[in-house]
Order: sequence, then C-alpha cells, then structure tokens
Amino acid sequence: MATDQLRQMRIALAQINPTVGELRGNSELIASNVAQAAAAGAHIVIFPEMCLTGYPVEDLALRPSFRAASKSAITQLATRLQASGLGEIVAVVGYLDQIDQAVDRLGQPSGAPQNAIAIISGGEIKARYIKHHLPNYGVFDEFRNFVPGNESLVIRIHGVDVGFAICEDIWQEGGTVAELVKRQPGLVLVPNGSPYERNKDDRRLALVQQRAREIGAPLAYVNMTGGQDDLVFDGDTIVVDAQGGIIARAPQFDDGLMVVDLNLRLQSSDPDLILHQDANAPYPRITHGVAPRLDEYGEMWQALVIGLRDYVLKNKFKSVALGVSGGIDSAIVAAIACDAIGAANVYGIALPSKYSSDHSLADAAALAQATGLNYRVIEIAPMVASYLQAMRLEGLAEENLQARVRGTTLMGLSNQEGHLILATGNKSELAVGYSTLYGDAVGGFAPIKDIYKSDVWALARWRNALAIAQGEVPPIPERSITKEPSAELRPDQKDSDSLPEYPVLDQLLRAYVDEDRGATALAAAGFDPALISRVIGLVDKAEYKRRQYPPGTKVSSRAFGKDRRLPITSRWSE
Amino acid sequence: MATDQLRQMRIALAQINPTVGELRGNSELIASNVAQAAAAGAHIVIFPEMCLTGYPVEDLALRPSFRAASKSAITQLATRLQASGLGEIVAVVGYLDQIDQAVDRLGQPSGAPQNAIAIISGGEIKARYIKHHLPNYGVFDEFRNFVPGNESLVIRIHGVDVGFAICEDIWQEGGTVAELVKRQPGLVLVPNGSPYERNKDDRRLALVQQRAREIGAPLAYVNMTGGQDDLVFDGDTIVVDAQGGIIARAPQFDDGLMVVDLNLRLQSSDPDLILHQDANAPYPRITHGVAPRLDEYGEMWQALVIGLRDYVLKNKFKSVALGVSGGIDSAIVAAIACDAIGAANVYGIALPSKYSSDHSLADAAALAQATGLNYRVIEIAPMVASYLQAMRLEGLAEENLQARVRGTTLMGLSNQEGHLILATGNKSELAVGYSTLYGDAVGGFAPIKDIYKSDVWALARWRNALAIAQGEVPPIPERSITKEPSAELRPDQKDSDSLPEYPVLDQLLRAYVDEDRGATALAAAGFDPALISRVIGLVDKAEYKRRQYPPGTKVSSRAFGKDRRLPITSRWSE
Repeated sequence: MATDQLRQMRIALAQINPTVGELRGNSELIASNVAQAAAAGAHIVIFPEMCLTGYPVEDLALRPSFRAASKSAITQLATRLQASGLGEIVAVVGYLDQIDQAVDRLGQPSGAPQNAIAIISGGEIKARYIKHHLPNYGVFDEFRNFVPGNESLVIRIHGVDVGFAICEDIWQEGGTVAELVKRQPGLVLVPNGSPYERNKDDRRLALVQQRAREIGAPLAYVNMTGGQDDLVFDGDTIVVDAQGGIIARAPQFDDGLMVVDLNLRLQSSDPDLILHQDANAPYPRITHGVAPRLDEYGEMWQALVIGLRDYVLKNKFKSVALGVSGGIDSAIVAAIACDAIGAANVYGIALPSKYSSDHSLADAAALAQATGLNYRVIEIAPMVASYLQAMRLEGLAEENLQARVRGTTLMGLSNQEGHLILATGNKSELAVGYSTLYGDAVGGFAPIKDIYKSDVWALARWRNALAIAQGEVPPIPERSITKEPSAELRPDQKDSDSLPEYPVLDQLLRAYVDEDRGATALAAAGFDPALISRVIGLVDKAEYKRRQYPPGTKVSSRAFGKDRRLPITSRWSE
Repeated sequence: MATDQLRQMRIALAQINPTVGELRGNSELIASNVAQAAAAGAHIVIFPEMCLTGYPVEDLALRPSFRAASKSAITQLATRLQASGLGEIVAVVGYLDQIDQAVDRLGQPSGAPQNAIAIISGGEIKARYIKHHLPNYGVFDEFRNFVPGNESLVIRIHGVDVGFAICEDIWQEGGTVAELVKRQPGLVLVPNGSPYERNKDDRRLALVQQRAREIGAPLAYVNMTGGQDDLVFDGDTIVVDAQGGIIARAPQFDDGLMVVDLNLRLQSSDPDLILHQDANAPYPRITHGVAPRLDEYGEMWQALVIGLRDYVLKNKFKSVALGVSGGIDSAIVAAIACDAIGAANVYGIALPSKYSSDHSLADAAALAQATGLNYRVIEIAPMVASYLQAMRLEGLAEENLQARVRGTTLMGLSNQEGHLILATGNKSELAVGYSTLYGDAVGGFAPIKDIYKSDVWALARWRNALAIAQGEVPPIPERSITKEPSAELRPDQKDSDSLPEYPVLDQLLRAYVDEDRGATALAAAGFDPALISRVIGLVDKAEYKRRQYPPGTKVSSRAFGKDRRLPITSRWSE
C-alpha cells in the first residue's frame, strides 16, 4: 500500500538532562519541552530513553515501588499534557514499565521490569514499545534489570507510518531493525541513553546512517545530556534521511530542543494503530543544520566538566575542595572544577610537608591566582610528627602516612565546611596502584580517573590554549605542565624512580587494560617482556585499591569500574 | 530401548576448593582427587563448576589469553591423567572454553567464552557440555561473561546413559532439564559453583530432589568449598535417588571426596556417545551416609571464618590487624579471625581517646586475654590534638577525625608490618551510614559487613556457648555482648542517640534492603511512617560510603555489593 507521495512533518527532538529517580522533576522537564515543541509547531516530540525515571536506574528497576511510581507518573504526564492544551502533539516518552503478571524463576510473583516508551496523544497512552535488545556488556546490566520486548510497533501519525526502536535495538542485528526493514515505516524514531566515549560519535553517526538506509526511511535519533555517577551523556542528537544523509545534528553536551521539518512517505506500512489517517497540509519550512563538532580534547574536556558538575549539583553539594600540590593532576582537576561550578565554589588546599619542593607551593599559589579559586595552606608536619612519635613507621609506611594525613585533613574540612572532596588520581596511577588508599585516594568524586597521564598533559595544554585563544588567563601554571612528575613523599622522589616513563607506560596500559591483550600478545607487539611482567603484576595487584576508589567520569571504552569487573583474589597475571 | 536392569556404578564427588586464576594449582588439586577417586575404585569422578579456572572468574572470561590458557590446561590435564595411569576413570571437569569462530555485535572477532565441562577419559576430552541457563541476577553476571550452550549431552558409561547439567541449569525450567526429561538418562551429574546463603541448603536439597523425580534418575550434585572475595562456597554435595531420597550428603564447608555406590538403569536413552557399552560386573558395596547438618548460626559462623581465611590465604597475607574497642563488633571480628588463621596471627590494637569509657580498654584487654591475640595500646589523643591545632573541627567533624586517626594508625601498622586490616562494621551500620569513611571503614576485608547487629549479638552468644560446650574459654567478653552499643566519639554517646533500637532497625532494614519493600509497603506492614522515612533516607544517602567499603563475606540473599547495584546519584527515596 506504499505510495510515493511525500508530505511534511515537523519533529522536535528533546536533548535534555533528566535526573535518576526524580520523577516529579523529570515530568516537569518533559512537560516544558512538550510545550516548547508545540509552540514551535511540531507534530511529534521525542524524548531520550527512560527520560521520565532518569537513566540508568540500575537495580531501582527491581523495586516494585519504583516501577509503580513510574507507571503512575507516565499516566499523570499524559493527563497533564491534555489539561495544559498539549493533547494534539504526539509525545514519545521513555519510562520504566512492567509486566504485571510475571513470575520469577522460582515461581514467585515478579513485576518483570521493562525499558519502555509511551506514545502519548490526546491525554492517553495510545501505545507502548518495549526495548528488544538489552545491552549487558561494558557498563550496562540491562539483562539483569529488564525483561525484553519482542514486538515491533508502527503507528500512523498524520498519514506517516512511524516505527520505533530504543538505543541498543539499532546496535544489534535482528529483532526490531529486521522487523522494521520488513514493515517499511516512513520514519523511524529512536530514543537513546548513550553515554559518551571518546570517538563514539563517529561510530554512532555511521550506525544511524546504516540503519536508515537498511530500513529505507529517515531516522531521528535523540540522546540525553548530563552526568550520572560515572557516565556522561553527550547528546549528539541526529536526524538523517533515507539515504543516510545528515539533515540535522545537535550540539554535543548541550541541552536543547532540535526541531526539524521532514518530507516523508505516506502510508508505507500496515500500522498497528492509526492516530491520524490524513497527512498534514503543506506549511512553510523552518531551517535547521548541523552544529559544529568539538575536537577530540574539546569533547573530553566537556565530558569531564559536565560529569563533575552534575555529580556536584544532582547530589546537592555547593562546593568542592581538593589538595593542590603544584603538580599537574591537582591543577587540571582544579581547572575542571572551576569550569564546572565556578572558581568561587572551589577550595584548593596546599598541604606541604618537609619533602615538598620550593616550586610546589609557588605553583599551587599560581594555580589559585590564575583560576581565582579559594586557597589556603595547612602544614602537615605537626600531624605527621605526632604519629611518628606514637609508632615506628619507615620507608613506604612513612610515605603513605603523609598522604593519609593529607586525606584526613581534607575530610575534616569536608565535614566542617560541607565541600565535596575531589580525588586527583589519573588512570595511569590508578592502573598501577601508584596512590595511597585513604590518602590521595580520598574523595567523593575522581574527575580524571579515566584519563591516562599522557592525556592529562595534552588536556592541560589544550585548555590553556583555549584560554589564550579567548583572551583569558591560562588556568594551569606552565611549570605544573613541564616539570617532572613527583609524589614528593621522600627526598628527591620522582615518579620515574618507581614507574616507566609515562608515554611507554600508557601505551602498555592501553593495550592491557583497555584492549584485554595478554602478556604473549604484548610481547608480540614489541613491548619489553620484563616491563610487561612488571606492569601487569602492578595492575593486577592494585585491584583492591581501585575497588575503594571514588567514582569518576568515564571517557574511554574501558574505564575502571563497571566496565571492568575482575576478582580481587586472582592468581592470573599474564 | 530402556531396560529395567539395574547395575552398580561407583561415583566420586570432589568437593574441593580451587583458586581463581590458579590454573596450575587447580590442575594439581584435580589430578590428586582423580587419583584418590581411582584408588577408591570409582568409575566416574565429578568436579565443581569451572573448577580448573576457579569460580567466578568474572571478566577474566573476556580475556583471550585466559581462555587460551584454560583450554590448554584442560587438554594437558587429560594427557597427564593418562600418563599417571588414570586414563580409565571418567573425569568430569569444569573449565572455561570458547567458540573460536564467534564475532561480536560489531562484527569483530570474538572468542565467545563458554562455561563448560569436559568429559575426560583415556587421555582425551571425549565430549563437552556447555551451560545453558546463565544466571545474571544477584551476584551473578554470567550473561555478560558467557555465551550459552543449547545442546544436551548424554554419554553411555559402563552401560549407563549419563546426562549432564551445570548449576543454574537445574534452577530454571526448560532447556537442559526439559531435554533430559525427554532423553531419560540413567544418571544425572551436576557440577556447581553455588555460593552459601543463609537457609539456601534447604532450597538446594528440595530442588535436587525435584529434578531427580522429574527426570526419573538418580542425581549427583557436587559443589565447591572455600572463599572467593565476597562469596563462600559451602559444599553441601548431595546424591539422591530417582525418587528424590537422599543417598549421601557431604559435610558443609569441608573439603573432601565423597564416594557413593549407585544402582542404575542400563541403556535407558539414545546417547550422543558411547564410552563403554557394557555394564560393570557386580562388586562389594561401600557404605556412605548423610553428614550431620550445622545449625543456623553454626553455618553462618563457618561461612564467616572461611570467607576471611581464604581472603587472607589466597591473597598471601600472613596476619591480620584490627582496632579493638571493647565493643561487640571488633570482638566478634577478632574471634572470627582467631578461628580463621589462629590467634598468633591476629593483632588487636586498642586506640583509646579521651571519650573512651573505663570499660573499653578493660574489655579489649579481656578479649586479648580470652583469645590469645597479639595486643597493644596506642593512645590517639596526641594525633587528634595535632589536627585540632591546625584547623577548626567541631561536632561531627571532630568525631570523624578521631575515627580517621585510628584508621591512619592502623594503615600505618599495615604498611610497616604487613597485616591485612579488617574493618569491623556490621550490616546495620553499613546500611544507615553509621560509620566514618577512611576511619572505621578502613581495611582490606570486612568480615561482618553482611551481618545485622541483632545477628552479631546472636552469633557472639552462639560462639561463646560453643566454647563452653567444648570446655574452652569463651572468646568474647560477656560485657562486650551486654553493654549498650556506643561509638564513643563524644561524651556519653550511645548508638541509640542517633539510631532506633537495633531490633526495630534491623527488622525495617531487612524489609527495605533485603526484600525491596518500599515506604508504602512498609507502612502497611505496621512500621511507623516517620521512622520509615528517616531510615530509608539514611540508607539511600549512604550509598557513596558503601561503594568505598571493603569486600566482605556474603551470608544473606541481598548483601551490599554485587547483589545490590544502585546509583549514588538518585532522588528516589521511598
């Protein structure tokens, strides 16, 4: 029954930032975006995956009370939109649903949770689509948290047969995409909760283009923004035509409503439901386009800033504090924090010991000067001395003591003044265990835990260059970037006393940690066997430290945390 | 082709304790048990799930190097058994295999990992069975780590058609069990990696009996022992007849080889492979029986002791240390540690402050006296004073400071002397966040983190009663059990100043944490609404603290950790 007639339809894609568990606030946010979309003349407005509940909800999906509240909230939203005169627009809203009559593996009643979208119109939920492919790799546990759907959905809206898919549904072969290829919708709408990873936007665009071509219809892909614990969602909402040509692409990381006019085939399929048989009358087109893309470090910086900002704001902190050593790690974390919540809300504490070099305090002060953060100095020597009088601690034990006195001092300030403490460790240190538990590892959030040291330097240079280009003072003191890294826990200590030079170390770590290459493969790739064995040993032995490390923003495809789940007790180290 | 003839077969079930990643050591352990089984005249010896690699291997399954090593180790094991004159016995050994030609969701080469058993005989792997049902709930991530098998396996061994299933395969309807019901084997062998949970042994026995009756054949269930991070395997190896009657049951938690003589139907199925067409000639039967069961607290105590012992030994520590306050939590952890690795390897450090009451030091000393642990006293007042001179800390900030000075002191001793530090927090405290991050929360292992305070008292009484029954000195000072709980971080502080009485609190926590009941359901169950709201608020707000808490032995069906995966950033608290 397909016709070749093309008619206009206006689609609004709401690239917004919900908060997990905040049903009331998310409903408000959705309603206000529906109103904006309606005001812009849109016929359909589409929201990200599980936008009503926030995403990912993890094991909240297993709570009957939370599922009931989500179901109730989606119904209330439909009613409310109608009451506000917004019943005409079709709203596609992600939420948490359940199969009411399900039983679990032992035959007990279980409201099997489902990752769903509601098609809302005229004050009612007209139809639902349930996610078919549930990702259960990397950071995702959806096979744990949801029961899959197994039916495709096509609805006729203003004469156009519209098909639906949710996120992973388009990343996998078979299932929903295969169904849509058969059913020939005139438009495909895809809500997503797709976290940022370095270079992922390229793969995402290629995939969206491929699926549009396979199905033979324009595809509108909407993704959320904002941070949620260790994840950051980068938006990157995309609309492509049936040949995969880009029609519009939203700015990365920014909230906003993207409105596009599409020319769509009418009555191309056999729909499950007809909302409106007739097509829209012609109307004047709006213009839209493709937002400029951030460069590689620009993307990463933005992810780090938003990851921290949302952890602070969504957890209702007002300020952050960190130890500033004059080194590069604390300097870059301070700069991220200043960009995230403003220098007035950032407290940098210099905690010099007898081993701190002359330039440490000067560079810490220069950081404070350049960024405008709140700065103070607390000498740790008296506290360190008090422990050393009470017990014999030498060598590494004494080095760690200094780090722990700093940690205890920062946590005291956190308790007294209410700051969130930031841990400043980078991925290289975290990988090889070059950090002190309960010392420099203290904190509620660790902004650069997924950034290798080589990238810490590159990002620092990138951020300073941006400042210069914008006529601002570069936030990170030049000497913090150029001086040789040192923990300064004993006289004349250098990181290179204990570790290989960072460029080599980071290359090896990427291959072992991020790419799962074992000792034999690493040797074949040309790494020195003695170095491989030493580094793998360090990484494996430090698993217990990483388990107690604070969360921090994921930017790689394999961040420490939910991405990499290894036993602490393990004799495998090859 | 079934006959009603019954013939004898001798089965050995190896209830043993492998170590994750220790391929060489586990191979040794398996070979020595095969030798024992052969010496005992067994025709088949069966080992627990993934016994060769240890279990659970978590994301090690995703490493090509580890999979290759496991495949190589299972082949070497077969060769080695033959070379040692053990080729005649049929050995059923769990290991990690892979599908060599698999590709991942993006079409990249991927050696899809499989949870497998090898049927070894005559120096060769004669057949493999792949686990069909992959648990992906609670602590399990098997859908993440493995690709399921979809074929049943029946092998004729000495005339008896033997079917196979792995662990979860018998917990789920459909799949392997349904196939075996159709195929009518004369015996079913089930290797398991089934972690201890309170009262799970009853469910396990009932399930084994049910499956034997459904299939209509005797069923031999073998489970591993030992601790692996937060899990403890309790053995509880069981053999039942075709009517579900118990033939033999091994002691809980103990390593050993259980050998049983069974009378089995011959040639009851259409096997995939025939190893021996002919049945065994009659031979003299051995006797076997049902080991006595531990009582409820006896089981829990044993789980806590083995969980700690194996964390210490498998991670190659020689000693543990903990702060001993005179209170019940540190006393019971010390008693567990003494039972696990001997009092000579346990170091109890009293860390009194100016708020410590008179009885604290006396009770700590009494604990040392009763158990024989190594005892010393370090006053924390000078260290606390040194911080208070450097900055203004009042109220909660000063209370937490004391806890952190203790934590730093213990970690200093750990670094200097090599002890594993034990955190002494219980599940009630962990639930409501009644602990200080980097203070009393420091440690590499937290033995009682899954024990509610009410059970801490009950276990202490149980352990003391056991000592008295055995004519030994009760390890836990009576006053530590009877006195009112206090953190002693300010004058005359009592836990009940900040928290409801523990019996009420624990009941509420069980319902909220372990049973996922929300505020409405809790109110309907009769809890005070104000209390519900306060306690739920405390539990939800403490999620960030639990993330940084050390691992500890799981004894409940919902332990904090892999069992309960919740966002830190969440506004849902109902």
